[in-house]
Amino acid sequence: MYIIQRIKMFTTNLLIVLIGALLGRILSKKLKQPSILGELFIGMIIGNIDIITLTDTMKDIADIGILFLLFSAGLAINFDEFRRLGKSSTIVAFSGVVLPFLLGYSVTILFGFSKLISLFVGVSLIATSVGVKTEILSELKMIETRLGTLIMGAAVIDDVIGIIAVSIVVGIAASGAILIEEVLLTLFLSVIFLILSLTLVIKLFKKLSERFMFKIGNIENILLFGFIIALVFAVTAENIGLSIITGAFIAGLILGQTHFVRVLSEHVSIFGESLFIPIFFVTMGMQFNVYSFKSVGVFAVVL
Amino acid sequence: MYIIQRIKMFTTNLLIVLIGALLGRILSKKLKQPSILGELFIGMIIGNIDIITLTDTMKDIADIGILFLLFSAGLAINFDEFRRLGKSSTIVAFSGVVLPFLLGYSVTILFGFSKLISLFVGVSLIATSVGVKTEILSELKMIETRLGTLIMGAAVIDDVIGIIAVSIVVGIAASGAILIEEVLLTLFLSVIFLILSLTLVIKLFKKLSERFMFKIGNIENILLFGFIIALVFAVTAENIGLSIITGAFIAGLILGQTHFVRVLSEHVSIFGESLFIPIFFVTMGMQFNVYSFKSVGVFAVVL
Repeated sequence: MYIIQRIKMFTTNLLIVLIGALLGRILSKKLKQPSILGELFIGMIIGNIDIITLTDTMKDIADIGILFLLFSAGLAINFDEFRRLGKSSTIVAFSGVVLPFLLGYSVTILFGFSKLISLFVGVSLIATSVGVKTEILSELKMIETRLGTLIMGAAVIDDVIGIIAVSIVVGIAASGAILIEEVLLTLFLSVIFLILSLTLVIKLFKKLSERFMFKIGNIENILLFGFIIALVFAVTAENIGLSIITGAFIAGLILGQTHFVRVLSEHVSIFGESLFIPIFFVTMGMQFNVYSFKSVGVFAVVL
Repeated sequence: MYIIQRIKMFTTNLLIVLIGALLGRILSKKLKQPSILGELFIGMIIGNIDIITLTDTMKDIADIGILFLLFSAGLAINFDEFRRLGKSSTIVAFSGVVLPFLLGYSVTILFGFSKLISLFVGVSLIATSVGVKTEILSELKMIETRLGTLIMGAAVIDDVIGIIAVSIVVGIAASGAILIEEVLLTLFLSVIFLILSLTLVIKLFKKLSERFMFKIGNIENILLFGFIIALVFAVTAENIGLSIITGAFIAGLILGQTHFVRVLSEHVSIFGESLFIPIFFVTMGMQFNVYSFKSVGVFAVVL
């Protein structure tokens, strides 16, 4: 009985989320808005009228969604341009970090909160929604452009700055001091991971793909192989302290330089956009609680 | 912290299952066996060396796998032939049911068990593994042939016979008598569901698809729409008492008659075979416990 109830609940939940996604897309199309807006909006309605609860399974599947989104963005990007824009991306990333931090910190201080809380608010504003950014760029077919490449590059660097900032603030909160060794270790591992991935690993994969292209054979196995690589990088990034989506993006960049790129970039994007990515945005909308939003409204608007 | 641990566990589990699937496929290819054998075998190893536990999420995703498999089988089948072979399918289904039942029943009686237990064993042998059958047919590219159509038709009828038989036996076990109204209701609903789906509903979808083909537009939305329809039929079948996979198969048959068939049949099969279906077979292998198998070995071999 337990098994049957589990299956029943899951299929019904999935059905409701997918119908929500389709309705959201139709709504967006009518209003000439990006489809993500409609998906978030319908998700918010589903979440707040409480017809279904968000199960762990649905959250896990939503995580695959954001993974797919960034993996497919990585596949679409021109790697040479990505490298050429490295310096500009860093500048964009830093200015995109400093301003929100200063704003968040000073507004919270003005509201009379302690320095520590203000630090937390400032740091939490650093974390920008890479998912939303990527989806909109992708819908406008701008990922492949110079601007898209610049923004995606800045997002990767933002992630590194973000975890450094968080580990500094958490260190201060926990022990009153900056745990300098831990921060340095995280920074060191992140930089090593990024540099190795984008130099040695990328060359290695290029070589190997030439040799194994015809051995792997059919589309299904190339895709399965691609998902495995995306997950390997996601899990590695995760263990370092970076986000899984940075890992997936790097995996996309790497495989984008191999002979698998044609098959992968076509199918990963269709695959993601028809199932996993809409699930991600609808469930994201579901987690947006209208009531709790009301009560912090003033503070949030000021921020 | 809870969220991070959940994501970490899930991505790692998924990675291990997918690597298992790829290894299984490579193994099968080397040994010139169908890929499902390798996937089941590697799954069995993963399950019995206990490196990961099978979470509910993984089981749910595996359920999507079997749904995809039957949905894509339904899409591939020639509906006119399916209808023409109706009578033959029924004969195949009944003979495929009567023989296992009689064998199971009599062997269990011979082993000295009670009549009720023998009934249970007989009935449980009716349930054949539709998943394994479908996957092998699909790998041999035989779904579209007359033989494939016959086998798939028999599988649908088997499902109906199966739930009738189970509800009869459960009724006897629970109350000592056949709950005739319940059995008739289940039978009635199943038959109505199948007949309506394959006559009125199929015509309705054909008509509607002509009108809306160009409105739905891109591939992603056609696929999203297809998944929704597959789930609607799966959930309906489930609520009647049939299995979700019969529902998904019927949905495939129906959409196979619409203008969406080209897009759907191409992508659903690639989509399934590169992610969901291998997950299904690897996790199926994982649930096969070598130790408990040993102890019932003699009995099972006789059966």
